[in-house]
Amino acid sequence: MAAINAANTGLVPSYGADELTERLQAAASKLFERPVSIYPVATGTAANALALAQLAPPFGGIYCHEGAHIVTDECGAPELFTGGAKLLGLRSPNGKIGPEAIEAAVDLATDMGVHHVKPAAVSVTQATEVGTVYGLEELQTLTATARRLGLPVHMDGARFANALVHLGCSPAAATWRAGIEVLSFGATKNGALAAEAVVFFDPLRAADFERRRKRAGHLWSKLRYLSCQLLAYLQDDLWLHNARQANAMAARLAQGLGKVAGARLLQPVQANELFVAVPERLIGALEQEGFHFYRWPWLQVPDGAAIRLVASYATTPMDVDDFLQCAARLS
Amino acid sequence: MAAINAANTGLVPSYGADELTERLQAAASKLFERPVSIYPVATGTAANALALAQLAPPFGGIYCHEGAHIVTDECGAPELFTGGAKLLGLRSPNGKIGPEAIEAAVDLATDMGVHHVKPAAVSVTQATEVGTVYGLEELQTLTATARRLGLPVHMDGARFANALVHLGCSPAAATWRAGIEVLSFGATKNGALAAEAVVFFDPLRAADFERRRKRAGHLWSKLRYLSCQLLAYLQDDLWLHNARQANAMAARLAQGLGKVAGARLLQPVQANELFVAVPERLIGALEQEGFHFYRWPWLQVPDGAAIRLVASYATTPMDVDDFLQCAARLS
Amino acid sequence: MAAINAANTGLVPSYGADELTERLQAAASKLFERPVSIYPVATGTAANALALAQLAPPFGGIYCHEGAHIVTDECGAPELFTGGAKLLGLRSPNGKIGPEAIEAAVDLATDMGVHHVKPAAVSVTQATEVGTVYGLEELQTLTATARRLGLPVHMDGARFANALVHLGCSPAAATWRAGIEVLSFGATKNGALAAEAVVFFDPLRAADFERRRKRAGHLWSKLRYLSCQLLAYLQDDLWLHNARQANAMAARLAQGLGKVAGARLLQPVQANELFVAVPERLIGALEQEGFHFYRWPWLQVPDGAAIRLVASYATTPMDVDDFLQCAARLS
Amino acid sequence: MAAINAANTGLVPSYGADELTERLQAAASKLFERPVSIYPVATGTAANALALAQLAPPFGGIYCHEGAHIVTDECGAPELFTGGAKLLGLRSPNGKIGPEAIEAAVDLATDMGVHHVKPAAVSVTQATEVGTVYGLEELQTLTATARRLGLPVHMDGARFANALVHLGCSPAAATWRAGIEVLSFGATKNGALAAEAVVFFDPLRAADFERRRKRAGHLWSKLRYLSCQLLAYLQDDLWLHNARQANAMAARLAQGLGKVAGARLLQPVQANELFVAVPERLIGALEQEGFHFYRWPWLQVPDGAAIRLVASYATTPMDVDDFLQCAARLS
Repeated sequence: MAAINAANTGLVPSYGADELTERLQAAASKLFERPVSIYPVATGTAANALALAQLAPPFGGIYCHEGAHIVTDECGAPELFTGGAKLLGLRSPNGKIGPEAIEAAVDLATDMGVHHVKPAAVSVTQATEVGTVYGLEELQTLTATARRLGLPVHMDGARFANALVHLGCSPAAATWRAGIEVLSFGATKNGALAAEAVVFFDPLRAADFERRRKRAGHLWSKLRYLSCQLLAYLQDDLWLHNARQANAMAARLAQGLGKVAGARLLQPVQANELFVAVPERLIGALEQEGFHFYRWPWLQVPDGAAIRLVASYATTPMDVDDFLQCAARLS
Repeated sequence: MAAINAANTGLVPSYGADELTERLQAAASKLFERPVSIYPVATGTAANALALAQLAPPFGGIYCHEGAHIVTDECGAPELFTGGAKLLGLRSPNGKIGPEAIEAAVDLATDMGVHHVKPAAVSVTQATEVGTVYGLEELQTLTATARRLGLPVHMDGARFANALVHLGCSPAAATWRAGIEVLSFGATKNGALAAEAVVFFDPLRAADFERRRKRAGHLWSKLRYLSCQLLAYLQDDLWLHNARQANAMAARLAQGLGKVAGARLLQPVQANELFVAVPERLIGALEQEGFHFYRWPWLQVPDGAAIRLVASYATTPMDVDDFLQCAARLS
Repeated sequence: MAAINAANTGLVPSYGADELTERLQAAASKLFERPVSIYPVATGTAANALALAQLAPPFGGIYCHEGAHIVTDECGAPELFTGGAKLLGLRSPNGKIGPEAIEAAVDLATDMGVHHVKPAAVSVTQATEVGTVYGLEELQTLTATARRLGLPVHMDGARFANALVHLGCSPAAATWRAGIEVLSFGATKNGALAAEAVVFFDPLRAADFERRRKRAGHLWSKLRYLSCQLLAYLQDDLWLHNARQANAMAARLAQGLGKVAGARLLQPVQANELFVAVPERLIGALEQEGFHFYRWPWLQVPDGAAIRLVASYATTPMDVDDFLQCAARLS
Repeated sequence: MAAINAANTGLVPSYGADELTERLQAAASKLFERPVSIYPVATGTAANALALAQLAPPFGGIYCHEGAHIVTDECGAPELFTGGAKLLGLRSPNGKIGPEAIEAAVDLATDMGVHHVKPAAVSVTQATEVGTVYGLEELQTLTATARRLGLPVHMDGARFANALVHLGCSPAAATWRAGIEVLSFGATKNGALAAEAVVFFDPLRAADFERRRKRAGHLWSKLRYLSCQLLAYLQDDLWLHNARQANAMAARLAQGLGKVAGARLLQPVQANELFVAVPERLIGALEQEGFHFYRWPWLQVPDGAAIRLVASYATTPMDVDDFLQCAARLS
C-alpha cells in the first residue's frame, strides 16, 4: 500500500517531463550493469508477447513449459503478436524446463524439416507458475544448450523480484550473465499500478521493437506515466523490499501449514506462492469463514483440490497467522 | 492541468475497488441514454484497432478517409488486430468521407467478387484529422447508406469531446442516434493520463470483445486505474469543460490569425485544431522565438508549409495572444 | 499408377469446361447423400487449415490429438489461416481423442475465462496418424459431446478412403451422420496428382469460404484441373478400389511380420499404415538391401526404432512378399 | 492449345522423378544467367504474397501502384502472408510507379517515425495492369532509388513473358540486371495449367522461404507436377513463342480498332491487353452478337465504358478479324 502511494505521488511532479523515460533507461542500465534497452508497457501479457515476437518468426516454434502463462493465460497473445508462431509446451512436474527436453524437441523438429515449425526461441518463467525458482546453474546449463541450438532465451519475469530475492544475487547475475537475452520485467504484481517492461540486454535485439509496440497499441502518448511508476519501483530498492516481504510471508505460511492437518505442500515454496493440496471439507469450512481460494485447475488432488495461496508486499504477519489459526482449528 | 489532478486524486481512494469499472459501465449508459458496453483501454490505437477487429473479418475491407489516423498513424495496428483486413482510403479535401464515395467503392468490390476484400465496415473520424466536424445530417446520410450496404459504422472519437461541443448536441444524438455502432471514446488528448474506451451501443456487437482485448495485452489486472480516470473525466462534465476551453482557444487563435500577414487557414476551425498555410520565412522567425510547430506533411503549400496548431484544455487566452502578437509582429 | 493415368487422361478433354467444377459439386452431393459444398484445393495442409479457419476465431482453441498432422506437420498453417488460433493437443496412445479429454479441457478453459482461448472446435484424423480408425460409435460419442459443448467437429481425411474401406460403411455414415461438420477429403495420397477438397455438410457453414480460399492463394484460375482430378478419383469408385488395394497390402504386411523375429506391431493395422518396432540391427541390414524407412520420431523403442510402413494403391503382393522374405531372412 | 498439350504430355513420363524440380532449378539458373532459387507454386496470388512476405515485416509498408493486382485482386493475400504489412498505393495514369512518388512517400514515412509503417519494399507489375510495359531505363531509375532508400524491389510478372517480348531483351536484362530482387514468374496466363514460380536472384534472400511456402499450404507433396509444367513452358522457348503470338494479336486488334468509330485506346498497347473506351450502344450491340467483355471498373468513360480485351497464345488472326469486322459494322 505504501508502495502504491509512493508511485502515485510520483506521478504529479513528473507531468510534462519526458526525461522520465530517459531516466528509466539510465536506471535500468545501472541496475543491470550494462547498457540495456528498456520498453515500458502496461501489462505482462503485452511484455511477453511483444518480446517473443521479437525473437520468433511466424513460422517459428518457442519452447516453454506446457503450463507457462504464455501458453495458458494470455488468450493467444503470443500467437497474435508473433503472427502465428507455435508455443511448444514441454512437461515437467516442477514448472521448469530442462536442456534435455529442449534438445529432444529440437532434434525432432530438425528431423521433420520444413513440415515442422522452425526452432526459434526458449521462454522460461522465473519464478515459475508453481512457485519454484530456477537456480543460477540450472539457468546457465539451459541457456548454454539453447545457445548451442541457436535459440535465444526469454525470461517471463512477472515475479522476477520474488525470484531474485530468493536467489540472493544481482539482477545481472540472474539474467544476462545467466544467458538470458530478453526479460519481461514485472512490476504490477509487486506494487505498481500497471507497469511492466521489456528489457533487451543486447540493444541490437531490439531493432524495430518500437514499431512492434506502437502497432500493438502499447505506445502511450504520455509514456512518462509508465516510466515514473517503474522509476519509483526501482528507487531505494522498493521492488526488492516488497518482494522480500511477500516471500517472507509465503515462507511463514508454508511453515505454519505443518500444523494444519490434511494440508500438504505440492511444491517447494521459493517465491511468494504456495500450492497446497487441501481436503474438500477444509476448503468448504474456510470458505464459510470468508476466505477465497483459487483452485489450481492443473493439478488433480484426490478428495480435495490444489489451491494457490499468494502472498504480496501488502500481506502482514497477522494476515498469515489469522489464516493459519483458522485453518488449524477447522482441520 | 486541473483535470489531470482531479483524475489523479481520483486514483487513491479507488484502490481495491473493483466497483469502479461497474460504475463506469453505469455512467456510460446514463451518458449515452441507453445500455452500452464500455471497455477501457490505455491508448487510442488500441481502441480503434480492437473496435475494427470486432466489425471486420480478416478478408474484409474498411472504408475510411485516406488520411485517417487508422491509416497513417497506427503502424498497422488495425491490420494486426483484424488479422489483415484492408483499410480502403477514400479521398476528400476536408477529411470527411461521403456516402457516394462509399457506394462507388462497394459497387466496385461487388463487381470483383471474391477477388476483392469483402466490404465490411466504415470508419469515420470525429473531429476529423484536419479539424473539421461532421454535421449531424451528414452523419445520418452516411450511416443510412452504410446500413443499406450492410456496413456497420465505427467512429474514431479521439477528439469526440471537441466535436460534441461544436455540435452542441447530446452524446446520444452524436453517436447511436446518428447511426454509429461503435465509438472509440477518447480521453487522453483531453486530459486523462492514458485512458480511452471502446463503446458498443449494441451490447450484442461486443460478443467476445473481452477476449480480443485480453489477447492484445490490453486487459489490465488492475483495471480500476483506467476506469477511475474515465469516471473522473465524465464527472461534473469535466470532459466537456475541457473541450470547450480548447475549442474556444482554437477559435480565438483562428480569429487572431487574420492579422498575421501571409497566414491562411486551410480548413474551417470547428474543433481544437487549426491547419494554417504559413510562409517559410515566418515559420523560421517564429521558431527563433521559441515556438515549435508540427509541419503537416499531407498538404503542400507553395513557398511555405502547412502547420498544425492544437489548442488544449490547458491553453490560456494569454498563451494564444502572446503567440498572435508575436506572429503579427514578425509577419 | 493406373489411377494416375486415368486422372491424367481425364485432363485433356476437360480443357475449357467450367462445368467440371459444377459436376464435382453434384457428384459430391450424390456421394454424401445430401447437398454439400465442396471446394477443391491442391494440398492437404491447405484443406485442413482453411477448414479450421472457418470454424475457429483467432482467439479460439481447437482440440485435437497432440500428434495430429495439423499440430506437427503443417509448419503452423492452421495458425496462419485462423489468424492465431491455438491447437490444444490431447494425449492418447492410439492416435485418437476421446470425449472425456475434450470435456476436461473445456472445463479448464471455462474456469479460466477470458485468460484462456475460447473453446471453438474439435479436429479428428481419420485414419489417425498411427494407422488406427475411429469406429462409428466412437465418433458418434465424441461428436455428441462436442455438440453439447458447442464445438463443431472437423475431420482430417487425408486417408479417409482407407478408413472408409475399413469401416465398410457409406461416406455419409462415416461423416455427417456421425456428427462431422467439415471434412478434408484427401485424394493425393490415394492416387491424385495434387487434389484435396474441403467438404461442408451444411452449406451455411461455408459462408465466405471462397474468400478465405482466394486470400490464401488457393483459388485456381483454371479450377477445372483440380475438379477433373477429383471427378476421375470418384468415378467408378476408383478411390475405394485404390484404398482397398492399399489396405489389403498393409494387412498382408502385418500378417507376414509375425515371421520376422524382433519385429513388433505398435498399433493395430486398420488402414494402410503400419508402425513397427524393429531392432536397430535389422533396420541396418534391411537398409543395406536397399529398403528405406521413415523412423517415426514420436515413439521410443529400446534398442531399436519405430518405423512406419505405408502401403499404397500401387503396392503389389509381390512387393510385400519380397520385403517380408528379406526381413525374415535377415532377422 | 498446343502449349497445354505439350505441358500435359510432359506429365506422364515425369511421374516418380523428383529430379524434375532439380532440373527446373538448373533451367531457371541458365535462363537468368546466374544461380537463382526458384520455387514453383500453383497460383499468381500465392507467388506474389509469399514473395512479399519474404521482403516486408508485418509492420512494413510496400509501395506499389494503387491499381496493382496485389492491392485490388488478391482479397488481402499479401496482408495474410506478410502478417499485416500495408500496401501503400501510389497513383499514376499509366499503371507504372515512378521514383519521385516512392521517394516522397518514404520521406513522409520517415517524418512520421514509429507511427507509420516502416518502408520495406517496392512492387512493380510487368506488364502493368493496364497493358503498359516499363522500359529498361525506367526500371533501372526506379530500382536505383529504391536501393538508395533500402527497399528491395519485387516484380509481379504474371505477364512477364509478354513484357519481355515487347522489350526484346534477355530475361536477365529485364530483371536482376535492372535491379529486381524477386520475381513472380507467371505461366498460367500464358499456357500452363496452374504453375507460377517465385524466383530469387540472390538465393540468400530466400532463407526460410520453403517454410513460408509449406505453412501457406503451397508445398505440393508431388511437386514434380508443378515443376514439369514449368520445364515444358521454358523448353524450346515455348513461353516466348506463346507470348509473341498473344502480343501480335493484341497489336493487330489495336490497329484494327482505328476503323471502329467511337472506340478509343486508353493506353498504349505494349503487351497482350487493350483498354478501350467504347460507347455503351456499341457494347450492347457486340454483346448481342455473342461477344463478352470485362468492363474495367477503374476507369470512367462518359457515355460508355472502358473494356478490357485480352489476346492469348490461343488467339488467331481470324478471331481478331472476325471481331473487328463485326465491331466496324456495328459502330
